[in-house]
Amino acid sequence: MDKKYLKVKKRSDIEKILLDKFSVNVGKETCPIQDAVNHFSARDYKATFSIPSFRKSLVDGFAVHSKDVLGASPSNPVPLHLISTLKIGESYKDKLKRGETVYVPTGGVVPDGADSLVMIEHTQVQGDEVFVFRSVSPHENLIEVGEDVKKGTVILKKGELITPQKVALLRGFGLTEVEVFNKIPIGIISTGDELVNSGSLKTGKIYDINGYTLFSEAFSSSIFLPKLYGIVKDREDKLQKALTKALSENDIVIMSGGTSKGSFDFTVSVINKAGKPGVLIHGLHLSPGKPSVFGVVNQKLIVGLSGNPLASFLVFKYVVIPLIAKKIGLKVKKHTVFATLNANVPSRKGREEFIVVKLVKRSNEFFAEPIFSESAFISVFIEGSGIITIPLMSEGLIKGEKVEITLW
Amino acid sequence: MDKKYLKVKKRSDIEKILLDKFSVNVGKETCPIQDAVNHFSARDYKATFSIPSFRKSLVDGFAVHSKDVLGASPSNPVPLHLISTLKIGESYKDKLKRGETVYVPTGGVVPDGADSLVMIEHTQVQGDEVFVFRSVSPHENLIEVGEDVKKGTVILKKGELITPQKVALLRGFGLTEVEVFNKIPIGIISTGDELVNSGSLKTGKIYDINGYTLFSEAFSSSIFLPKLYGIVKDREDKLQKALTKALSENDIVIMSGGTSKGSFDFTVSVINKAGKPGVLIHGLHLSPGKPSVFGVVNQKLIVGLSGNPLASFLVFKYVVIPLIAKKIGLKVKKHTVFATLNANVPSRKGREEFIVVKLVKRSNEFFAEPIFSESAFISVFIEGSGIITIPLMSEGLIKGEKVEITLW
Repeated sequence: MDKKYLKVKKRSDIEKILLDKFSVNVGKETCPIQDAVNHFSARDYKATFSIPSFRKSLVDGFAVHSKDVLGASPSNPVPLHLISTLKIGESYKDKLKRGETVYVPTGGVVPDGADSLVMIEHTQVQGDEVFVFRSVSPHENLIEVGEDVKKGTVILKKGELITPQKVALLRGFGLTEVEVFNKIPIGIISTGDELVNSGSLKTGKIYDINGYTLFSEAFSSSIFLPKLYGIVKDREDKLQKALTKALSENDIVIMSGGTSKGSFDFTVSVINKAGKPGVLIHGLHLSPGKPSVFGVVNQKLIVGLSGNPLASFLVFKYVVIPLIAKKIGLKVKKHTVFATLNANVPSRKGREEFIVVKLVKRSNEFFAEPIFSESAFISVFIEGSGIITIPLMSEGLIKGEKVEITLW
Repeated sequence: MDKKYLKVKKRSDIEKILLDKFSVNVGKETCPIQDAVNHFSARDYKATFSIPSFRKSLVDGFAVHSKDVLGASPSNPVPLHLISTLKIGESYKDKLKRGETVYVPTGGVVPDGADSLVMIEHTQVQGDEVFVFRSVSPHENLIEVGEDVKKGTVILKKGELITPQKVALLRGFGLTEVEVFNKIPIGIISTGDELVNSGSLKTGKIYDINGYTLFSEAFSSSIFLPKLYGIVKDREDKLQKALTKALSENDIVIMSGGTSKGSFDFTVSVINKAGKPGVLIHGLHLSPGKPSVFGVVNQKLIVGLSGNPLASFLVFKYVVIPLIAKKIGLKVKKHTVFATLNANVPSRKGREEFIVVKLVKRSNEFFAEPIFSESAFISVFIEGSGIITIPLMSEGLIKGEKVEITLW
């Protein structure tokens, strides 16, 4: 048993342990619809009327009683009396009588009485007479009120991400503003005596990767307003001070680094010293990502992640973000694909594994090429397409198995 | 033959006709790395050194000559002389001699001479002696210089979208700024007498959907800086004025609306009057999207799209954006999945079709449920997941066929 980790948990236990221990003060704001993309809707939106709101023509043509043109053909044209020529946006006030016709452009209003339209291509106009060369069925070339969207239909759910497609729906009902959730302030601290921000590197030093990667992922998730707190040396007092500052300015704080024995202890102790209840999870049955710490202080979530760039990225993206999204009720979309595994992937029973794979498409089939990541701290980011998950009690996956890849 | 369309082309001909006729003045800018996500890289980035740049420990443990600990076991511990205890970021100046050991934390520098590490869990320290209880193989628990990324490896290509993963790679080499392409100014004009921006709707009127949808899609693609030019009535002089203004302020102009006969003619004629060479494609063998117009004026691309929200969205996203991306050399990522079609989809030979489908996951398999869109102008945006494409000369797809869905 590894004595470094005190409260090791399965990933599936995280929600149970943490969800009712922390809270996120997520506010709402009204934003102009052209800025709404990449925000999450703060409420349900329903269709306030039916679309189309009038019987709408699908063609440029003549509105008719279909019975009037029954049997019409080029050799047996049916003459109708043209009583109006509508432009787009105009409507005919009366009811169309038998023997009458009205010109309606595509998208125009079909007059009451008419049950179909004859396309202009199948007619000939002579003065105020229109000769129809073809019969039409009732309902042909028009759509009824509400045939597209019925009044009351939910067009956007609370917690859904607003995409251009959702903008189309909202605009269908004339919205110029949308109520969206505020971005959640999240503070990001990098720790480690080995870390340098820029400039030349002395032996043993590395650049701070995690701070910027987690910042970018937080931003890119559309959930957060991330703030960088820079690099903090492996000294408990300095880390405590940075954590206190970040906690005072954010709802959530992420610390990364400190996987080595000493500094990892600092992460745990500064969270515990910051307040109650302190550290609740100390270690995960997950690889990579075992040295992850979850704590709560004054209802604020604090997460300590490994210094390994791949591990901290994966745990943040696939564990921390889903936890926070669940808490707030955000529907985070993930694209998955099924693929055939093209190599064996051994795994140790008793720990879940995230394996980064490269997705390869070969003649209408996807293959998943595992990128073994023991030494691939950042090179996985060059070619990786996403991850597969090996369950806790599995001894691995066999070449040829069908696996589900969560794309990143 | 439909006389409305004069230069109807296949989608596959668009590039051939247009690519060398228009140009896009895409500039470059340097942006701080924390703002780089959602920009496209303006140049190749290569690894400027190897990572790791020093032999790096993967564990908290003792660096050893593996030969020294051959056969070590709990009953036969091997004593080594502890000559230094490194902290993270520190290195041992000399070469490790036989019989010696140095403590190295995870991520620390492995001293020259040592070829492996023994995890701290398999040792016991007594004063300056370390008893080793387990043998290790050469190379165990460390990674060599360049084992992650070799100097010279391309870590980000010109035209690639910068994601959090790419930020990790760039930060690995200490970059604090990235050279990215400027966003391309694109002007969006909505046309049609039936269009209203907000307020109550009279019969025959609809809200302007396309302006905002195309604006959002342009923004969301990360390629453009979109600007809305509002709603222009179906009058040639007004449309000409709007086009002139939009052309003077943007590299690309998109007009949507005017699918009805009269106003469609306006789109064509204002492009032709704006300058040379004018309209180059007038109609596509594509459904939806037949009434699409592509023109070039003073090397600037002008596109006229259907007023149908689904048609204009699909043609913009899957035809116009890829054309511009190709011109500039941007690698636009698209997620695709294979699925089993769960309904027949008839199609007319001689036109390509985009069919919106809903993706349904059932026990390790995806199914594609076509959403027939004749009357679904915007309701497809509620449940649609993406599109399948029916080739020009196909008569349709059969239930049970495997299809590739381009997710949106």
